[in-house]
Amino acid sequence: MRVRNKPWADDLIAENPEAIVLDAAAHRGHWQDRFKQQQPLQVEIGTGKGQFLIGMAKAHPEINFVGIELQKSVLAAALKTSLPEALDNLQWVLADGDGVETFFEPGEVDQLYLNFSDPWPKTRHEKRRLTYKTFLASYQAVLRDNGKIQFKTDNRHLFEYSLMSMTAFGLQLTEVSLDLHADIAASDGKLENIETEYEQKFSAKGQPIYRLVVEMPDKAK
Amino acid sequence: MRVRNKPWADDLIAENPEAIVLDAAAHRGHWQDRFKQQQPLQVEIGTGKGQFLIGMAKAHPEINFVGIELQKSVLAAALKTSLPEALDNLQWVLADGDGVETFFEPGEVDQLYLNFSDPWPKTRHEKRRLTYKTFLASYQAVLRDNGKIQFKTDNRHLFEYSLMSMTAFGLQLTEVSLDLHADIAASDGKLENIETEYEQKFSAKGQPIYRLVVEMPDKAK
Ligand SMILES: C[S@@+](CC[C@H](N)C(=O)[O-])C[C@H]1O[C@@H](n2cnc3c(N)ncnc32)[C@H](O)[C@@H]1O
Ligand SMILES: C[S@@+](CC[C@H](N)C(=O)[O-])C[C@H]1O[C@@H](n2cnc3c(N)ncnc32)[C@H](O)[C@@H]1O
Repeated sequence: MRVRNKPWADDLIAENPEAIVLDAAAHRGHWQDRFKQQQPLQVEIGTGKGQFLIGMAKAHPEINFVGIELQKSVLAAALKTSLPEALDNLQWVLADGDGVETFFEPGEVDQLYLNFSDPWPKTRHEKRRLTYKTFLASYQAVLRDNGKIQFKTDNRHLFEYSLMSMTAFGLQLTEVSLDLHADIAASDGKLENIETEYEQKFSAKGQPIYRLVVEMPDKAK
Repeated sequence: MRVRNKPWADDLIAENPEAIVLDAAAHRGHWQDRFKQQQPLQVEIGTGKGQFLIGMAKAHPEINFVGIELQKSVLAAALKTSLPEALDNLQWVLADGDGVETFFEPGEVDQLYLNFSDPWPKTRHEKRRLTYKTFLASYQAVLRDNGKIQFKTDNRHLFEYSLMSMTAFGLQLTEVSLDLHADIAASDGKLENIETEYEQKFSAKGQPIYRLVVEMPDKAK
């Protein structure tokens, strides 16, 4: 365990069943019931303390968001931040992202986000990287045709690995930036970017932020 | 014309017909006749003043090299540098790389190099980029099955474009480095890298050098 269990986290989670889900598989095919509006569903895996998804939910009331996070105390921090905002298009899920295929029905998800995922630099841990082919297969299983995956990271080797892993899997690279913040600065406000906690930390140090978008193949073709 | 014609270049080229080819298409299917040994053939397009290919020819006597360059005076500089080395595995070609399909037979080329290709940043000039799909199609036409293209550049936008263009074309990304010189420094001499003129210039300024390798699909499969 990297993070000690904190009793306040258990209490906060128990008190807010309308905002946080512990039994994700039970909602498979019915996620829209958890939201006020029926609208496209976007999912982040490894959502951390939630800064990105809270920002997205505020900026995009026309989209429903689900943030999946493994660590209870980390997700409890996200919940704590989101509660005062009373966002009816945001749900948290305490779960391991490797179960994503059991959480959503085929086509139920419009778009997936991976932000600053743990790098697992050792080759023997390759299978744990969120862009390893078994993860990609389960993303494909839940995303709609032409659904997208957006991936941001500061970790050069993880980004290089992901470029190869994703294109080898047959996903189509539709956007790539090797210095996202330079591109944003040059875009005259045209490029939307909601920063994650890690992104703020690393870009403040002057490290380039890498970003890519891949698209699912259109099965009908 | 970006470079004035220099009479010394014409003379040097005329005096060395054994080292430089002006009628590349005439040698289609017979390139091995221009070399001492029959061995794998590797081609660089936009070879500039030849530093990379001269270094490769010295380091790899077991490979034959052809350097294609558009500008006469630039290629003459390459010729001038290579002559004293008397490399019997190196040939220069004065030509536009867009004719590559007419210079080589299908399968005649084992590997292709593109180094610090002109970026052509404007969208309306996309077709001139050496990684535009029509160029990729002609590379595919001359490369053997599983033949490779190696591409190095300091130009971020050209590299991003090339990643998308090459993978969209169906080429398999087999290697990618977003900081080649950092990877070399970390490799304990295991990574071979012959620097080009532009590479020396830009890496001295501390700019990252990007590198990728793509592989042709195996037509037999
Ligand atoms: C490096 S942090 C980044 C957090 C946040 N996305 C950001 O950009 O600031 C990675 C997060 O992913 C979570 N995580 C790692 N593997 C996971 C998995 N298989 N399923 C769900 N969450 C995971 C970790 O617990 C951690 O909170
Ligand atoms: C920026 S320089 C790089 C030279 C060298 N490869 C290096 O890395 O130092 C690009 C070179 O490519 C040549 N070039 C551009 N387009 C070409 C084409 N279509 N066919 C052959 N050469 C070309 C230019 O004349 C120029 O010498």
